Amino acid sequence: MPQYIAPLRDMQFVLHELLQVDQELKQLPPHAEVDADIINQVLEEGSKFTQDILFPLNHSGDREGCRLDVATHEVKTPEGFRSAYRQYVEAGWPALSCDPEYGGQGLPVVLNNAFYEMLNSANQAWTMYPGLSHGAYEALHAHGTPELKAMYLPKLASGVWTGTMCLTEAHCGTDLGLLRTKAEPQADGSYSLTGGKIFISAGEHDMVENIVHLVLARLPDAPAGTRGISLFLVPKFIPDANGKPGERNRIYCGAIEEKMGIHGNATCQMNLDGATGWLIGEPNKGLNAMFVMMNAARLGVGMQSLGLTEVAFQNALVYAKDRLQMRSLSGVKAPDKAADPIIVHPDVRRMLLTAKAYAEGGRAFSYYTAMLIDRELNHPDEAVRREAADQVALLTPIIKAFLTDNGWIATSEALQVYGGHGYISEWGMEQYVRDARINMIYEGTNTIQSLDLLGRKVLMDNGAKLKVFGKQVQAFVEEHGLDERMAEFVGPLADLGEKVTKLTMEIGMKAFQNQDEVGAAAVPYLRVVGHLVFAYFFARMAKIALDKQDSGDSFYKSKLGTARFYFAKLLPETAMLIRQARAGSSSLMALDADLI
Amino acid sequence: MPQYIAPLRDMQFVLHELLQVDQELKQLPPHAEVDADIINQVLEEGSKFTQDILFPLNHSGDREGCRLDVATHEVKTPEGFRSAYRQYVEAGWPALSCDPEYGGQGLPVVLNNAFYEMLNSANQAWTMYPGLSHGAYEALHAHGTPELKAMYLPKLASGVWTGTMCLTEAHCGTDLGLLRTKAEPQADGSYSLTGGKIFISAGEHDMVENIVHLVLARLPDAPAGTRGISLFLVPKFIPDANGKPGERNRIYCGAIEEKMGIHGNATCQMNLDGATGWLIGEPNKGLNAMFVMMNAARLGVGMQSLGLTEVAFQNALVYAKDRLQMRSLSGVKAPDKAADPIIVHPDVRRMLLTAKAYAEGGRAFSYYTAMLIDRELNHPDEAVRREAADQVALLTPIIKAFLTDNGWIATSEALQVYGGHGYISEWGMEQYVRDARINMIYEGTNTIQSLDLLGRKVLMDNGAKLKVFGKQVQAFVEEHGLDERMAEFVGPLADLGEKVTKLTMEIGMKAFQNQDEVGAAAVPYLRVVGHLVFAYFFARMAKIALDKQDSGDSFYKSKLGTARFYFAKLLPETAMLIRQARAGSSSLMALDADLI
Repeated sequence: MPQYIAPLRDMQFVLHELLQVDQELKQLPPHAEVDADIINQVLEEGSKFTQDILFPLNHSGDREGCRLDVATHEVKTPEGFRSAYRQYVEAGWPALSCDPEYGGQGLPVVLNNAFYEMLNSANQAWTMYPGLSHGAYEALHAHGTPELKAMYLPKLASGVWTGTMCLTEAHCGTDLGLLRTKAEPQADGSYSLTGGKIFISAGEHDMVENIVHLVLARLPDAPAGTRGISLFLVPKFIPDANGKPGERNRIYCGAIEEKMGIHGNATCQMNLDGATGWLIGEPNKGLNAMFVMMNAARLGVGMQSLGLTEVAFQNALVYAKDRLQMRSLSGVKAPDKAADPIIVHPDVRRMLLTAKAYAEGGRAFSYYTAMLIDRELNHPDEAVRREAADQVALLTPIIKAFLTDNGWIATSEALQVYGGHGYISEWGMEQYVRDARINMIYEGTNTIQSLDLLGRKVLMDNGAKLKVFGKQVQAFVEEHGLDERMAEFVGPLADLGEKVTKLTMEIGMKAFQNQDEVGAAAVPYLRVVGHLVFAYFFARMAKIALDKQDSGDSFYKSKLGTARFYFAKLLPETAMLIRQARAGSSSLMALDADLI
Repeated sequence: MPQYIAPLRDMQFVLHELLQVDQELKQLPPHAEVDADIINQVLEEGSKFTQDILFPLNHSGDREGCRLDVATHEVKTPEGFRSAYRQYVEAGWPALSCDPEYGGQGLPVVLNNAFYEMLNSANQAWTMYPGLSHGAYEALHAHGTPELKAMYLPKLASGVWTGTMCLTEAHCGTDLGLLRTKAEPQADGSYSLTGGKIFISAGEHDMVENIVHLVLARLPDAPAGTRGISLFLVPKFIPDANGKPGERNRIYCGAIEEKMGIHGNATCQMNLDGATGWLIGEPNKGLNAMFVMMNAARLGVGMQSLGLTEVAFQNALVYAKDRLQMRSLSGVKAPDKAADPIIVHPDVRRMLLTAKAYAEGGRAFSYYTAMLIDRELNHPDEAVRREAADQVALLTPIIKAFLTDNGWIATSEALQVYGGHGYISEWGMEQYVRDARINMIYEGTNTIQSLDLLGRKVLMDNGAKLKVFGKQVQAFVEEHGLDERMAEFVGPLADLGEKVTKLTMEIGMKAFQNQDEVGAAAVPYLRVVGHLVFAYFFARMAKIALDKQDSGDSFYKSKLGTARFYFAKLLPETAMLIRQARAGSSSLMALDADLI
């Protein structure tokens, strides 16, 4: 009953009209030939795969879940997942943005991200299998020895093997400094790993012949805390000389978790019992290597919630046009029917437009950031690369936390449009809400993202990275400040920009006295900055839409309407957030723990 | 692993210190003898039943769910549910606030509601079986013929039979005017009912020997719409002359729904195939009779989310004190441990205190309203009864929508405190979130509640009922306006009171021009008024706590801290809500439906 149609028109609007991504790519030597036609063709093909192959498995995958055979330690994924993955590999999708040196197609990150939006709309649980694999590919690509890279990267790029990230242990999630898994050096240069990992997504499954685990562990002489953690590659089967899966390694799935959502993905407890591994990067520098993976993963989690927001919106919209219930308060709208379609009711529209605005704002924001990653990786000018890297560092925690909080809000509003039917599994809406909930937690909780943003990315360099973004906003405000048609957007944008500057300084001052002020302000602060980014992109999109609203293409009228809704109804959240951030830490910290 | 300890101290604080409920009850002849000792004794007993019998079945009930035998149309509830219900009946709990004429104990509604908070904390899905039954009892008590009352009320009061509300059909939820179930008069004065109902909670189960369905249907000559709906009593088994379940009636459970949560409660499709029923109330006046049930149910749904908020808070608090992860930003707090307990982190405290404040505010508000119901039912002075009834009418939709939205927020924050473990079923937190989601939908969606509040309860009498509440606020502000210790509470309360007055007038003016302005403002408006009520009660509680903070009982310090948190961090939501309400309907209604 649910449906998904890839929003190609809006994706192309963002890529070509808003970001003019082909102009950007012309500056980047490896992508200079990637034009709009190539991009559109890939998206078109991607839409078919996601709509026709993946989406039909989303609901059934949720109902069926994964099953562990405790005797063999093998996990069976839901019916159809394996076959869909085979088609995915055969079509070459895993290699899309991988390095041609290892069999990749070398296409830009921004295109891969647009594709991932569609994958996640169609089936988040399934998409985590190749998604985590891509993260492992990136960490290995950045830090592996030439031998490891030669052996493993082609397998990960082609997708015939998949990868995982093994970080968390029962007693340590956020605080990786506490981890205990041990790695003992062996005579042959390999390591013997022993310990237990939990919450390993895609840790075991039946879709590929081998699984490449990237595992954090401690060397025998490692210092305590986060400076004593190293990263290891631990394959499920140790490849033989021909690169075929050989001896079964001593890393086993001991259990899979029952959880709220993403039932189609196996969340594994992994036991390492003298498993053979190889060091990636330098000893005790494992977190550095892992952060390559982590940053990509944080953007990836943002794309998950963008995907869910889009598909939940689409379904709620169809329902709202179809469902007849009550009459419009301002007069009958469908006199030939027993009642009006519920889309006539203002509050139903509020719920729909909330999801729509969060999808469209998130798309602009995340595609823009992915484009910056391409710039960071491939621009010939080092200064440009460095500035791009700084902006990516600034924006990544915002994408992760803001888009996933928005996804939670949007999927819940979309469920609400269905009334009681939204709560019933067969309609598919409640799954989106359950799936969306994990995105606020994994790859660093949203609180951790907000501390990363405020503490590390903003205050640590006295707001330098934020100022660069602020200048972009300022330039836009100055360019369009006198355009009367733009006043409704430029005014609030300029105002919020000033408020963010002031708020940042204020928190910075308070933090000198008491670091808890950072922790107290961080979560509302991140959402304020998220709204600044959204307001900036909605203003830019509104400008394009205003210029083209009489083109006869109703897309621009729709875009303009969404932008106006965003400014009228969602941006006012900043009035609350700024007050919350300014209220500081005292009401939080005054009570002894025993009095809470 | 989860735990529940009934918050007797805070319940008693609200009942005795805040509301001084025994003084109130002295004014009400049937309850004049109900003193604090009786109340405390009942609560104490209730806490044992809910903690020891019901709570242990909550998680297992969720995992197991209900099963329908399609051959017999019988539903099997989760293991232990039946036995718990037997103990519940044996202890006399169903009769707590029922009419002594029909075997009830005649205790006040406010006490029954406090008991229901505990029931819902312990097990919402289970509590819906007796909860709906109590609603059916009330509708029948108010509108049934003497014969029907004599036959059925003692059975419902004792709990040996349970009741249901059969309203919804596949094509009509909110819009009952569309319903199609037919009732044909029979020669013996009974009716023959034919049709299909959906979403019937507790519609079929194995806990009692008979189920009494209250069914909305149309008489043959009934006018179209809501003025042509009548209410019927349709028992599963038709009682024989001795009041024993006799002939099986033709009302059958055809299917039960797979749904997001409340798995322990059977959500039934009920088919009536010439089922025998008896008219309750007058022909075509079924909605009036049903509204008796509905208003009680709306308060009941608020109590569900209050219960979930409390239990989710309690568990998150235990976890936050126990879980060691990272060091406090303001310096190590537990140097003897590998890391600090996460309760040292300001944002963890924000999440905990959000749930705590929503629980304590909701408790004060809902117990107060329940006390007003006692006043409405039993005060000797008719004018007092009428004013109480008006206040109950005003406050009921706010309790339903505000407390259930808050419950969704609070359970989700409590889950987040657990990080990844919050998403795993065995920890129990994700169930609270799933269970809480339905409360925003059933018994009238929260949008419907907000329209009821703004359109019907506020604007329709030019704000008269709201002004009565406002005068109470005003009196408190004037009484404590010069008390410096109270300034931090009285100032914002007075300010919000003025803003609500202004906002109400503004919307009223706009509504003259365009009724869609009501629909556009209603949802944020309801939350603004909800905060006004909370701010009023937190200010009153803060006053008591200030006076007793040096009593040596740390409860008052805790209460004061929670009130300060509420004013600092939650009340600022009104800054957003007022802007959203004032932004009006234009950004919602401008686009054609096809352009959304």
